[in-house]
Amino acid sequence: LADSESKLHRDTERLRVGVVGAAGYTGAELVRLIHGHPRLDLVYVAARERAGQTLAQAIPSTAGVPNLGELVLEPFDPGDVSQIRDRCDGVFLGLPHEASATAAEALLGAGLFVVDLSAAFRLKQAAHYEPWYGHPHATALSQRAVYGLPELHRAELLGARLIAVPGCHVTSALLALAPLLRRSTARPAALVETDGIIVDTKTGVSGAGRSPSASTHFPEAAEGVRPYKVVGAHRHTPEIEQELSILAGASVRVLLTPHLVPMTRGLLATCYARARPGTTAEACREAARDFYREGLVTILERDDLPDTLFLRGSARAHVAYALDARTGILLGVCAIDNLARGASAEAVQALNVARGWPDSLGLPEVGLFP
Amino acid sequence: LADSESKLHRDTERLRVGVVGAAGYTGAELVRLIHGHPRLDLVYVAARERAGQTLAQAIPSTAGVPNLGELVLEPFDPGDVSQIRDRCDGVFLGLPHEASATAAEALLGAGLFVVDLSAAFRLKQAAHYEPWYGHPHATALSQRAVYGLPELHRAELLGARLIAVPGCHVTSALLALAPLLRRSTARPAALVETDGIIVDTKTGVSGAGRSPSASTHFPEAAEGVRPYKVVGAHRHTPEIEQELSILAGASVRVLLTPHLVPMTRGLLATCYARARPGTTAEACREAARDFYREGLVTILERDDLPDTLFLRGSARAHVAYALDARTGILLGVCAIDNLARGASAEAVQALNVARGWPDSLGLPEVGLFP
Amino acid sequence: LADSESKLHRDTERLRVGVVGAAGYTGAELVRLIHGHPRLDLVYVAARERAGQTLAQAIPSTAGVPNLGELVLEPFDPGDVSQIRDRCDGVFLGLPHEASATAAEALLGAGLFVVDLSAAFRLKQAAHYEPWYGHPHATALSQRAVYGLPELHRAELLGARLIAVPGCHVTSALLALAPLLRRSTARPAALVETDGIIVDTKTGVSGAGRSPSASTHFPEAAEGVRPYKVVGAHRHTPEIEQELSILAGASVRVLLTPHLVPMTRGLLATCYARARPGTTAEACREAARDFYREGLVTILERDDLPDTLFLRGSARAHVAYALDARTGILLGVCAIDNLARGASAEAVQALNVARGWPDSLGLPEVGLFP
Amino acid sequence: LADSESKLHRDTERLRVGVVGAAGYTGAELVRLIHGHPRLDLVYVAARERAGQTLAQAIPSTAGVPNLGELVLEPFDPGDVSQIRDRCDGVFLGLPHEASATAAEALLGAGLFVVDLSAAFRLKQAAHYEPWYGHPHATALSQRAVYGLPELHRAELLGARLIAVPGCHVTSALLALAPLLRRSTARPAALVETDGIIVDTKTGVSGAGRSPSASTHFPEAAEGVRPYKVVGAHRHTPEIEQELSILAGASVRVLLTPHLVPMTRGLLATCYARARPGTTAEACREAARDFYREGLVTILERDDLPDTLFLRGSARAHVAYALDARTGILLGVCAIDNLARGASAEAVQALNVARGWPDSLGLPEVGLFP
Repeated sequence: LADSESKLHRDTERLRVGVVGAAGYTGAELVRLIHGHPRLDLVYVAARERAGQTLAQAIPSTAGVPNLGELVLEPFDPGDVSQIRDRCDGVFLGLPHEASATAAEALLGAGLFVVDLSAAFRLKQAAHYEPWYGHPHATALSQRAVYGLPELHRAELLGARLIAVPGCHVTSALLALAPLLRRSTARPAALVETDGIIVDTKTGVSGAGRSPSASTHFPEAAEGVRPYKVVGAHRHTPEIEQELSILAGASVRVLLTPHLVPMTRGLLATCYARARPGTTAEACREAARDFYREGLVTILERDDLPDTLFLRGSARAHVAYALDARTGILLGVCAIDNLARGASAEAVQALNVARGWPDSLGLPEVGLFP
Repeated sequence: LADSESKLHRDTERLRVGVVGAAGYTGAELVRLIHGHPRLDLVYVAARERAGQTLAQAIPSTAGVPNLGELVLEPFDPGDVSQIRDRCDGVFLGLPHEASATAAEALLGAGLFVVDLSAAFRLKQAAHYEPWYGHPHATALSQRAVYGLPELHRAELLGARLIAVPGCHVTSALLALAPLLRRSTARPAALVETDGIIVDTKTGVSGAGRSPSASTHFPEAAEGVRPYKVVGAHRHTPEIEQELSILAGASVRVLLTPHLVPMTRGLLATCYARARPGTTAEACREAARDFYREGLVTILERDDLPDTLFLRGSARAHVAYALDARTGILLGVCAIDNLARGASAEAVQALNVARGWPDSLGLPEVGLFP
Repeated sequence: LADSESKLHRDTERLRVGVVGAAGYTGAELVRLIHGHPRLDLVYVAARERAGQTLAQAIPSTAGVPNLGELVLEPFDPGDVSQIRDRCDGVFLGLPHEASATAAEALLGAGLFVVDLSAAFRLKQAAHYEPWYGHPHATALSQRAVYGLPELHRAELLGARLIAVPGCHVTSALLALAPLLRRSTARPAALVETDGIIVDTKTGVSGAGRSPSASTHFPEAAEGVRPYKVVGAHRHTPEIEQELSILAGASVRVLLTPHLVPMTRGLLATCYARARPGTTAEACREAARDFYREGLVTILERDDLPDTLFLRGSARAHVAYALDARTGILLGVCAIDNLARGASAEAVQALNVARGWPDSLGLPEVGLFP
Repeated sequence: LADSESKLHRDTERLRVGVVGAAGYTGAELVRLIHGHPRLDLVYVAARERAGQTLAQAIPSTAGVPNLGELVLEPFDPGDVSQIRDRCDGVFLGLPHEASATAAEALLGAGLFVVDLSAAFRLKQAAHYEPWYGHPHATALSQRAVYGLPELHRAELLGARLIAVPGCHVTSALLALAPLLRRSTARPAALVETDGIIVDTKTGVSGAGRSPSASTHFPEAAEGVRPYKVVGAHRHTPEIEQELSILAGASVRVLLTPHLVPMTRGLLATCYARARPGTTAEACREAARDFYREGLVTILERDDLPDTLFLRGSARAHVAYALDARTGILLGVCAIDNLARGASAEAVQALNVARGWPDSLGLPEVGLFP
C-alpha cells in the first residue's frame, strides 16, 4: 500500500522551486528548463547585480512570455531564508563555491532541498580539495551531498536533499571514461590502464560565464583556438580522478587540457587511455551500452563520431569509442552541451532522479539542429 | 451543449501527423517541435534523398531519443497516399513549391489536413505570381488555402484544412509593418505612408537550406556579410505587398533587400517607412500592442531593440519601433528565429489555432540564451 | 629642377613614425601596416594601460618578429613631447577625441605631422558638433585639418600636417554615395535626390574596440544580429552629411542605422536613395568609375555585389549599384574592412597622398581569402 | 669572387612564377603572398574548373587590384608545358597528389623548378605510402624531392628544384615535437620517449578546401566541434613519423586525432609525450630556441600559450611547452595559420631558402589582429 501511495505521490507531485544566480548563463538555462518542466513551478529568482530587474530585462529571451518575463529578480541573503522557505520546496544554487557553502547550509537548515551547481560539495576528501583550491575545505556538508551525475549515483540520489552537480568538463570526461574503468564481478579488470589517461577538452565560450573579459571578447575569441589552465591547473581534475577511482577501485590519474573554441555552447572531450590486452572498441561500446541502460547517454554506432552541433539545448550526451591498433591507444569521445547536460539540465535530471521521476521528465532530448 | 462538447474535444484531441521533407532544416525543426508537443504524435516521416535512413542517421540530434531516433524515413509518393491516410490525420509539407502543389491536392483529397511550408499557396492572385516565379500559377487550391500567419488570419484559420505558412523574410517584415498599415474604423489612416517602404533583412545561413553550396561553404560564409537577390529579385516581395495591401486597403509597394550574415539561425528585418504627420513611436507601440493582444509577438519597451540572439529556438517574435525626428522616417524592427517562428514553429502555431488550441501549445517560448 | 628634386625626395624619403594608442585594435592594425611599409619606420609606440609591456605582450601577433615584438610601449604625455619630437617625424593618434585635441596641438607645435583617427577634427562647423557630442567644439585646429578620405580630398591632402581620418561607417557610406551626389559642370544635377537617404550598416564587432563589454562578450555577440544607436543617435551621421553636402552643393540629410553582426572585421553599408529621373545603375557605375580613377576603390561589375569577406586586411573598398525599377529606389552598397580601409589603412593611404606617394604604397590590396 | 657574385645575384634575382590550382584556397593564398613578394612575379595562373575566368572572378579579393585581378586563369595541360616554360622560371603546384606526380615530372623536364603542395613527394619510402593511400607509390621523383620544412631541411633545400611542402597538421606537429626528439652529440637522448606520442589537432574549416560539402556547410560547421579520421585514418600520420624518426634516430610512433572547429583559418596541435627523467619545460624551450635560431618559429615565454588568433595570415608559428609533474606528461603546443604557415607561406619560405634568400623575404610575419 505504502508503495502504491508513494507512486501516486510521485505521479502528481509538483514542486515550487527557486533559482539563485538566475541572471548568469546556467541560471538562464535553469529558467528555460524549469519553465518547460511539467512538475516544477518557478516561484523565486535571485541575482546579485541585477536584483530589482525583471527577468525580461536580465534575460531578454523571456520578454513577453506569460508568467515568466515579469518575475522580478530578488537579492539573496543567506542570513534570512525565511521568505524563501515559505515560497519554495527547494532551490537551485548557481553561486561561487564559497558562497554556496554558506547558502546551502542555511537553506537545508530551513528544510529546503538544494541542487548546487558549484564545486562546494563535489569532493569527498578535504585532501583532494586544498591543493587545487588553495585553501582547506570549509564544510562538513560534503559528506551529506550526493554527486549529481545520475548515471553514476542513481541509487544514492533517490531522496537526496543536497545534490552537488558536476561541471561540464567533468561530466563529459566521466561519461566517456566511466564504462571503461568500472570493475565488477562480471568484469574484474578495467578495459583500459588506470594511469596515463589524457582528457583533451574543447569547450564553447559560454563555459566562462556571463562576465565579459579580454579572453571572451568576441574579436579575441572568434577565429581562434587556444589551450588554457594546462598541466594540472584546472580545478576539476580531482573530481574526475575521484569518480574514476571509485569505479576502478584503484587510484586513477588524469591529465586534463582544456581548450577554448569559437562557439557559444558545446563541449567535446577527447579521452586517451592505453587499452588493456584484448580490449576492442566494440567491447567498450558494449560496456557503455550496459552502463547507460538508464539515463540520458547515447552510445553512437561504430564509425559515427560525436559532434557538439547535435546537442545544443539537449539534456543528452553522445559517446563513441575507437581503438588505434598501431599504438594500442583507446579513444573515448563525449559531446555535450556545456550549459545543458554539462550543468543545468543535469541538475534537473538529478532532481528528477531524486524524486523518483524519469530522468528525462520535462527535459529537451532533441537539440536544436542546426 | 455542442459548444462544451466541442471544448472537451479540443482539450483531449490528439493528432497523428507526418512530416514530408523531414531531413531538411525546417523538417528537422518540425520533428523537434512535434516531439515536444503534447497533442501531436509524429507517426510518419518522409524524405527523398535520405529515404531508408533512420531519423538518427539523418538528424543525429535525435540519436538515442526513445520512439524517435529509430523512425525510418520513407519515400513520399503523391500518386499513392493511401498508406499515409491510414496512419495520419494530417501532414506538414516541406517540399519545393511545384511538388507541394501536387502533393497537397492528393493529401487533401484523401481527407488529410495539410500545413504547407512552400510558396505554392501563399499568393491569392495569379497575376502576382507569374512575374516573380516565371510561370503561371498551377493550382486552384490557393483560393482554399489560409495564409498561415495567425496574428493576421486568426478567424480564417479556425478549422482550416490547407494552411500556407509564410517564409521567414515575409513573417518578420509583416510582423513589424502590419500594425502600422492597418486601417480601421477607429484609425482610418495608416501610421505610415504606403509607398517607399524599405525592408532590409539580415538572415542566418540556415535559411538557405541543407544543400551545400559555394555561398554557404563555411569559409565563405563566416566572417562576411553580403546582400543577395537585390532590387526586386526576391520572390517573397509580392507576399509582403499582398498582405500589407489587404490591411491598408490600398496598394502597398515594398523594396526588399536580403543580406546573408554569418550566423546559423535568426532573421532581423529593419523596416523603413515615412511616418504620417502626428505619428509617434509610442503610437506605433500602442497600435502593435493592440494588434498582438493574441499571438506570439512581444513588443519591446521604449529604448529596447530586438536581437536575434534571444529568439533561437523560440516561437516568439520581438518587435520595436523608433522615429527619426530629423528625417521623419519610422523604423520598425523585428527579430525572429528563421527556422522556428519563420517556418516550423509558425506552422505548428497555425495548426494550433486551426484546432482551437492556444497559439503557444507545445511550443518553446523561451529561446536558448546564450 | 625643383620639380625633379622634389620627385627624387619623394622617391627616397623615409619617415620615422609613432603610434599613440598602439595596443588598441586600430593601433595594432597601424603597427601591422607600418611594419610592412617600405618608407615608414616604427620608432615609437605608446599606450595608456599597457605602458611598460612589450608589443609582443600587448599584441601577441608581433611575438618573435625581429625589430618589432621587443618594442616597449611607453606612456604618452601631451605635456612633454620633446622626446617624441627628437625621435619621430610624425605620429598616428588613436585616442578618444577629447584627448586627441590636446595631443594634436602639442605634437603639431613641436613640428610633427599628425594623422588623427578620432572624431576631434572631422567636423568643420561647431554647430554640427554640439548636438551630437553634447558639448561645444574645443579647438580651432579643425579648420587646419584635412578630412582624410583621399578619394574626396586628394588635392588638399598634399602636404597636409594634420589629417582627420574618418571612421568606418562614414567611409563606407561616403564611398558608395559620393559619386551619386557630386554635381559638376558636366553633370549639374545629382543622380539621386538629396533627401530621404538611408544608410543601413552592418559592422563586425572589432568596431567596438578592444575593451570587453556585455554587448561584445562572445556568447552574446555570436549568433545574433541587432541594431544599435538608431534614429540619429550615431555621432558619425553629421560627417556623412557634411561631406555629401559639399559634393552636392546642397544640404543632404541621412538616416544612419548601424547593426552589429557576428564577425570580427568588415563593414557593409547598404545605402538607399531615390533615383532622379533618367538615372540608371550603369550611369551610377560610370560616375563612380570616373570618381575613383585614382584611389583604392573597386567598382564591381554589373550583377556582382560586395561581400566583406573579400576585404579582410585590405586597403581597398568594393562598391556596387542597382536600381529597383518598381520603386525607383537606387541601391548603393559598399564593403570595407572596418579596421583597415575604415581606419588604419585609410590613415596610411592619407599619409601616402600627403607625401606625394602612390595611394597604395606599402598597403595590402589583396585581402585574406578565405 | 664567385661567392660575392653569387651574393650579388641573390640580392637582385627576380623569378617569374606560376600557380597551378590558383582558384583553390592554398592557390588564392599563394596569389596573395606572391603579389606581396619583392622578388617574385606572378605571370601564370591555372585552374581546372574556373579556367577562362579572371582572377577577380575566381578570387574577388583581387578585384580591381592593378596587374592582378585581370589575369586570366588558364587550363593546365601536363602534356604540353612549353608555353609555361617560356614564361616561367618555376611553378607552385596545388593539385591532387596523383596529378602532381605527372605535372611535376613534365615541369622539371622542361627545366622549371617545382614547389609542390600535395602529398606526392613527401614520403621517402614506398612502404610508408601504400598502407595509407591504398596504392603503391608511383614515382621515383620522391628521392629527388626535398621535404619543404625549412627549419628541418635548411641545408638540403639550398638549390633544390623539387620541393615537397608538408601539410598543416604535419607542420604544426613537427614544429612542436622536433626539438624534443632530436638526438645529437650534445644531447644523446631525446627529451621525451619515442613511443606513445599523441597529437590532438584542432583545425579551421578552410583546411577542407574550397569544394562545398555537408561537413563544411556553414550551419553544420558553425557551433560544433568534432573529431574526424581518427585512429590512424589520417594520411599525414606517416609523414610525422618519418620526420621524427630521422631526428630521433629511432622509430617513432604517433597517434593523430584531428578535430574540426568552427573557424576559417588556424590549426592548433596539442602534443602529448612522456617526458624522460630530468626533462623540464625550460629545457624544452631551451632546445627549441636552439633548434629555431633560424626560421620563422617563435618560442613563447613560460606561462604563455599559443592561440591561432594571432597567426592569421602570418608565416610564423608559435610554440610552447609545459610539463605535468603529476603524470610526467610533456605538453607541446603549436599554433599556425593552416593556409599560410601550414601551406602557402611555407611554400614561399622554402623557395626563399632554396634561392639563398632570407626565410621571411616578402612574407607577412605579423598576422591580422584581431
